Amino acid sequence: MTGFSEKEVIDIFSRKLKITDLDDVAILGRNAVIKCDMLVSSTDVPPGMKPWQVARKSVVSCASDLAAKGARPTAAMISLGMPASVTRSFVMGLADGFARASKEFGVRILGGDTNEASELVIDCCMVGRTADGRMPGRGGAAPGDIVVVSGAFGLPPAGLSILLRGRSAKTAFERRAVRSVFEPEPRQLFGRGLARFFSSSIDSSDGLAISLYQLAADSGVDIALDVAPAAKGVDEFAAAAGLDPHELVFHGGEEYEIVATVPRSKITTARAAAKRLGLELLIIGSARRGSGRVTLHGRRLDNRGYRHFGRR
Amino acid sequence: MTGFSEKEVIDIFSRKLKITDLDDVAILGRNAVIKCDMLVSSTDVPPGMKPWQVARKSVVSCASDLAAKGARPTAAMISLGMPASVTRSFVMGLADGFARASKEFGVRILGGDTNEASELVIDCCMVGRTADGRMPGRGGAAPGDIVVVSGAFGLPPAGLSILLRGRSAKTAFERRAVRSVFEPEPRQLFGRGLARFFSSSIDSSDGLAISLYQLAADSGVDIALDVAPAAKGVDEFAAAAGLDPHELVFHGGEEYEIVATVPRSKITTARAAAKRLGLELLIIGSARRGSGRVTLHGRRLDNRGYRHFGRR
Repeated sequence: MTGFSEKEVIDIFSRKLKITDLDDVAILGRNAVIKCDMLVSSTDVPPGMKPWQVARKSVVSCASDLAAKGARPTAAMISLGMPASVTRSFVMGLADGFARASKEFGVRILGGDTNEASELVIDCCMVGRTADGRMPGRGGAAPGDIVVVSGAFGLPPAGLSILLRGRSAKTAFERRAVRSVFEPEPRQLFGRGLARFFSSSIDSSDGLAISLYQLAADSGVDIALDVAPAAKGVDEFAAAAGLDPHELVFHGGEEYEIVATVPRSKITTARAAAKRLGLELLIIGSARRGSGRVTLHGRRLDNRGYRHFGRR
Repeated sequence: MTGFSEKEVIDIFSRKLKITDLDDVAILGRNAVIKCDMLVSSTDVPPGMKPWQVARKSVVSCASDLAAKGARPTAAMISLGMPASVTRSFVMGLADGFARASKEFGVRILGGDTNEASELVIDCCMVGRTADGRMPGRGGAAPGDIVVVSGAFGLPPAGLSILLRGRSAKTAFERRAVRSVFEPEPRQLFGRGLARFFSSSIDSSDGLAISLYQLAADSGVDIALDVAPAAKGVDEFAAAAGLDPHELVFHGGEEYEIVATVPRSKITTARAAAKRLGLELLIIGSARRGSGRVTLHGRRLDNRGYRHFGRR
């Protein structure tokens, strides 16, 4: 946006609409939650992505936010804007992707709306259910809480860098990286299995650094990291490609990991629960008394995240 | 869409997603219903419409569909796509419109999503509640049922014709017509007060003719009209402007009236209920044994509706 940021837009809306408890997922009723996510082709669709993958990604975005809150998707509505020039096979591809996502995430797609628009826009609105009516917010972290993530970072940003340079994947790492962009996997099991231990949580689709800053700011704590959770192969890839691995890990975005805090008293039980589920639960740092700072090895992290691709 | 129609797009999605009971509003739970509507500026925003009116209209579209089904809006999520060039005052205007709509329709706006897009796109996703868990569909009309509307038609299309010609409203009729475009009034009281009498219903935002065809096709009946429900002043306006009043009444669209069928045995009670609420309930025809034909005075109506404005 010219002259002002997405954050300012959100602030204007929150103020005017008196939304005091803004989170990525909203509480709709007792156990019911709701989340909308708009995918815009010029900023959210990397080169080479197939129509079914685009459709699936629009559902993944919502499923990932729900997962971070421990909620199970139940129903979704899909609104579509498409250019008049769209082909039948493109529409069939989108429909395939929605059908696939519906099955994969156990979400009934109830209906939607179709429109003509100057570019492809998909808004997925997903309703879900929490196990016990409790949903971890972004503001619940307390000093002493342990900061955990559902997996390592850097793979999708590496994949994106390959796609945006118009290269094709050559190594096994590069193929995995590109695949992680085209077919992201939200951490449903991690979120639903472990959310009861979270004091705060968020999905990392805006990037790891900005997600940590969001938890820190909303919770009124500092976050001190002692680990940079780089995925295996990211350092080597970055070195060969002339990229900064730190950028790929912290400022890449488009990653659907879960970032959460767990009270120190529950961390052993949480790790055991993760182990039983066959999942990684990476500890990367802890929350401290403070006012929204995020550091790695004592040095302030940049508060930058989500960089839209295309057009810039 | 080039080469194929919106109906074909909907057919592809319904088939692939196995949605057998597609309606304008979907059933979410016991008494809960859900509806999404995407507003796209290039096709849904007439010249001269203010940002707050645009935002409000995106909510009206959903509120109107819910009203036709007798449902009360409860909560909404708003997804926004906006060009990078958008100004602060434009965003403030949109937020004002949402705040206004929230108050007017008694709907809590819980949150949403903001994005950069090549044109303004607003997707409103609204959750509502039916009084008794029963929702009239589009397919419930039976031969003999009476066809009713919540008001007369032609005012918004007249207003649109003024705006699209770049003229300004001069007469009292023209001012009302333009206002009906900028500040449409969904028939909430009509829908919520009378839906228990409807065997089928739909809102008329796609145009009166196409709405009647939808009820006739989904119900497997013919609809025979003996009245063209023209709003007062439409004939005179059309004559002076060189327009066909029949077009304005049947093929204009952008009108938020309710079109419904009422079993013959209930029509007296329904009229009495409408009278108690201080509402018009216009009888315009009846359903007959058949297969989806719609006639006026015995002559087939064109099955044309919603004409997007701009770009064509």
